[in-house]
Amino acid sequence: MPRILRINTRERTFRVEPMGAYQGLGGRSLTSRIVRTEVPATCHPLSKANRLIAAVGVLTGTPAANAGRTSVGAKSPLTGGIKEANVGGVFGTKLARLDYTAVVLEDKPDPDTDPCTILINREGVFIENAPHLKGLGTYHAAEILHEKYGEKTGIMVIGPAGEQMNLAASVQFTDLDGRPARAAGRGGMGAVMGSKKVKAIVVDSTGADPVTIADPERFKQATKRWTEILKGHPVTGEGLPAYGTAILVNIINEAGALPTQNFRRGRFEHAQEISGEKIAETIARRGGVVKEGCMPGCIIQCSQCYVDESGQYLTSGLEYETVWALGANTLIKDLDHLAALDHRCDDLGLDTIETGNTIAVAMEAGILPWGDGKAALDLLEKVRTGDPLGRIIGNGAIFTGAAYGVDRVAAVKGQSLPAYDPRSVKGVGVTYVTSPMGGDHTAGYAVAQNILKVGGDVDPLTKEGQVELSKNLQIATAAIDSTGLCLFVAFAVLDAADGVQAVADLIAARTGIPFTVDDVVAVGTNTLKDEFSFNRDAGFTSHHDRLPDFFSEPLEPHNTVWDFREEELQAVKAGILE
Amino acid sequence: MPRILRINTRERTFRVEPMGAYQGLGGRSLTSRIVRTEVPATCHPLSKANRLIAAVGVLTGTPAANAGRTSVGAKSPLTGGIKEANVGGVFGTKLARLDYTAVVLEDKPDPDTDPCTILINREGVFIENAPHLKGLGTYHAAEILHEKYGEKTGIMVIGPAGEQMNLAASVQFTDLDGRPARAAGRGGMGAVMGSKKVKAIVVDSTGADPVTIADPERFKQATKRWTEILKGHPVTGEGLPAYGTAILVNIINEAGALPTQNFRRGRFEHAQEISGEKIAETIARRGGVVKEGCMPGCIIQCSQCYVDESGQYLTSGLEYETVWALGANTLIKDLDHLAALDHRCDDLGLDTIETGNTIAVAMEAGILPWGDGKAALDLLEKVRTGDPLGRIIGNGAIFTGAAYGVDRVAAVKGQSLPAYDPRSVKGVGVTYVTSPMGGDHTAGYAVAQNILKVGGDVDPLTKEGQVELSKNLQIATAAIDSTGLCLFVAFAVLDAADGVQAVADLIAARTGIPFTVDDVVAVGTNTLKDEFSFNRDAGFTSHHDRLPDFFSEPLEPHNTVWDFREEELQAVKAGILE
Repeated sequence: MPRILRINTRERTFRVEPMGAYQGLGGRSLTSRIVRTEVPATCHPLSKANRLIAAVGVLTGTPAANAGRTSVGAKSPLTGGIKEANVGGVFGTKLARLDYTAVVLEDKPDPDTDPCTILINREGVFIENAPHLKGLGTYHAAEILHEKYGEKTGIMVIGPAGEQMNLAASVQFTDLDGRPARAAGRGGMGAVMGSKKVKAIVVDSTGADPVTIADPERFKQATKRWTEILKGHPVTGEGLPAYGTAILVNIINEAGALPTQNFRRGRFEHAQEISGEKIAETIARRGGVVKEGCMPGCIIQCSQCYVDESGQYLTSGLEYETVWALGANTLIKDLDHLAALDHRCDDLGLDTIETGNTIAVAMEAGILPWGDGKAALDLLEKVRTGDPLGRIIGNGAIFTGAAYGVDRVAAVKGQSLPAYDPRSVKGVGVTYVTSPMGGDHTAGYAVAQNILKVGGDVDPLTKEGQVELSKNLQIATAAIDSTGLCLFVAFAVLDAADGVQAVADLIAARTGIPFTVDDVVAVGTNTLKDEFSFNRDAGFTSHHDRLPDFFSEPLEPHNTVWDFREEELQAVKAGILE
Repeated sequence: MPRILRINTRERTFRVEPMGAYQGLGGRSLTSRIVRTEVPATCHPLSKANRLIAAVGVLTGTPAANAGRTSVGAKSPLTGGIKEANVGGVFGTKLARLDYTAVVLEDKPDPDTDPCTILINREGVFIENAPHLKGLGTYHAAEILHEKYGEKTGIMVIGPAGEQMNLAASVQFTDLDGRPARAAGRGGMGAVMGSKKVKAIVVDSTGADPVTIADPERFKQATKRWTEILKGHPVTGEGLPAYGTAILVNIINEAGALPTQNFRRGRFEHAQEISGEKIAETIARRGGVVKEGCMPGCIIQCSQCYVDESGQYLTSGLEYETVWALGANTLIKDLDHLAALDHRCDDLGLDTIETGNTIAVAMEAGILPWGDGKAALDLLEKVRTGDPLGRIIGNGAIFTGAAYGVDRVAAVKGQSLPAYDPRSVKGVGVTYVTSPMGGDHTAGYAVAQNILKVGGDVDPLTKEGQVELSKNLQIATAAIDSTGLCLFVAFAVLDAADGVQAVADLIAARTGIPFTVDDVVAVGTNTLKDEFSFNRDAGFTSHHDRLPDFFSEPLEPHNTVWDFREEELQAVKAGILE
């Protein structure tokens, strides 16, 4: 019977509750409903009134392929709105096996309290003081925790950035190798965890029964079809496994939408040097791992293990958006520097997209030269020590811009933009602007239809059809984010006639409750309703649904500008809230 | 004929325009109308789209008593909303004598451009490159400018904080002694001026005719009555001249509303040591100046010249709010430290209210000990050099709170609260929360009726009548801020049956156009309409009309809490926008 585990971080007590009013929810639908219901929209995100929720989806922990995701939600200290950050790793699967759908961190200890760890296993919940972990990088902390609690644990952990409550702080999750290389990156969820003085949550499902499946036979059938769908699609079956997400570097560069030098141009002359093809070739030559999954049950295998010249581990999960943010956007083109920057972000517990944008803003301010990877590494290291410059950088791009008077900051609702210039991929631009999450590509990945021509074909350079496209994608995404499925399944789902049906079948078989394609859509719509309502009560209006003014500058090579009027964009929210 | 001087700061060109559609406006009514009309509400406040306006009132420069004020307006980088900061000094009178009602700084040069100065005199307007002034404190800069342009000039100048575009940056104005001790402090107006790369504007009215008076005889009569009203009131005629505004330290402490240690208590045990009485006694003993005006024609004389043990100048304009912010709120109780901190704020070009709150937040974060004046001086000095810690501190209390994860920050709409705890002076609390300016006492100074019992008697500890009171005061204040009159005249105006009539008479005699008491109210109402409309379009909603959650904690000694509901407060805006 799925349950919710609630931790009072001030009293260091816990209680286990039935799902109650939250019955049937999971992943993002659950984190957003809890935030909407329990967190005052106007509270300070680092105050005791905020809550940090880690929730698994209804399919997490089942044998269904690519179903191991975890949602991390709270009121975001970065955006001031609601937030869900979605992550892989092994944590979710183990939590699901212990029959917890969510862990909720409540209240807040005094500021001078030592950090603690929370161990969750079959025997119960153990909250322990952990002064020895204070200030440690996530890699070192995970190593110590694995030594203490065993290799077969799943860990969510914050780094120095989260402990310092930096606005760009991520929550890092351990992967199949036990490395904290997977990030619930966006929106400063690590800062909320840091405000609760929780350094890490460790889940050990040793001895637990498999996740219960209400209708095993039906589930087996559904899983078979599900695997076929994923394996049979060129993106999930071929492209992503071969080159990881960084396969997009060349594709987006070719499309003229690779934001270069803080969104000044749409093409980076050194794109080839930081491409997925180059990464795969480098890893293969050096004896690293070209493809691997980030979580149990993954058959897409878009992750990798990037090694240095001597074959030593440098980083994992070197995503397209990371390579872009730390690379093309800052003009850093040395792959080893990019891998080291990615590792440093993971170790400090920093969102790579926010941090890449921040480094670009720091370059605008003259703090370091454009393209200087070594200087960027040194700059990030300042975050570790609580140095004032580190506190500026750790707080993200808008904050750094304010500290240095830079007005060219690519962000929406406080959150830095991802790796697709909205002027030349207008569909994803609509998502940046209208998503309740702030500047976020995953919330409605219109790159699929605009550029990859998956699930449809919409001209990336014109406005036509983009609002409707983004709205539908935002609904679909909110639904998928609620199941525990990796968002990349959407590529295959959108192109298969029975894609959504297959997801509905998996859920119905798992729960034993009828679940239709309409129900999938309803989950997405209701989740967005919760999110838009929360943001409205937090003070957001249509005036926040906008890009910074400099996106009216034409973007080479297509000389496109951002030309949506505020009114045109309100159809997204109106269509969902109606 | 009144005119507007517009400077294009990128091209370094100027043009002089007739008032046109702005005919009849002055001071705050003019700055707010220009911002409302010409500045896109959603623009970045440090971008070229923002404009900085310095405007005089319709009475500025006339022989009417206390009429020399200047309004500085822009979209605020601190609040994100509209802003008018009101200031004394000699600048306004001189600008008015040159027949300019406003100077408008437009556009923005490249970031690496040297600062410039703008000289305005009878011969014209001279924009000169001023690399030698770069980074200088306002005192040193004013000295150099006086040497170059003469002692009889009026100067508005920014310090290092403004040049660095720090959010707490003020614009400093020279007083009758040529010292830049008067501040258009609030809302980061200095950062906007810094973004335009204008270090100083120097006005020389040598040889200019007196301001034209349409009906000299009527003006003479009106001025006579006006002087009687001011001289005859106990606050403007006795209290303020005797002890300056710091006379309020003991009064507000006695009322249990002196926010102590970052708004933890309502009484400061060392209040007596930082009181206006103690300041006056210290100055008198050391041979300083106990009372003087901050601008020509002042008969209230609430300023002073604070000197050290050896009789050397330390600071001027040591206001109650400054003494409180840097003193009771930080537990610093050494008067010489407070005077030195005030001087340093003026020299760096920092708002003292924002900075005092920021030091308190820094103390919360453990950066320096509570009550340590020497450490506070050292901390502020970091602002001068562009040191990262200085950039954090210079950006104000919310920014510093974010940098250090402190959620106890007393601010509304991004701007720190002034020297009256809203739990025990509820009327001014309503103003903090509802004013378009953000946390600001001057926008509707209900302390008068709540504590001083001037212009009415409303219980400070209960909600009754406060919303209506604040609304009426906000209208009256917006009107007075538009005339060039010092706000302190309001004490006398509110208690004299013919107070508002006297103001209307002055305006009518000055312009030769009929002006009634109703017209005074209309100016206030229309100005607030402009301001509320701008803020609405900038994205503000009723959800921004609130105090931080910690004001629900009871405040000693009255154990009062902030208990207004959001809906109750909307009557202010609704009453004005209707």
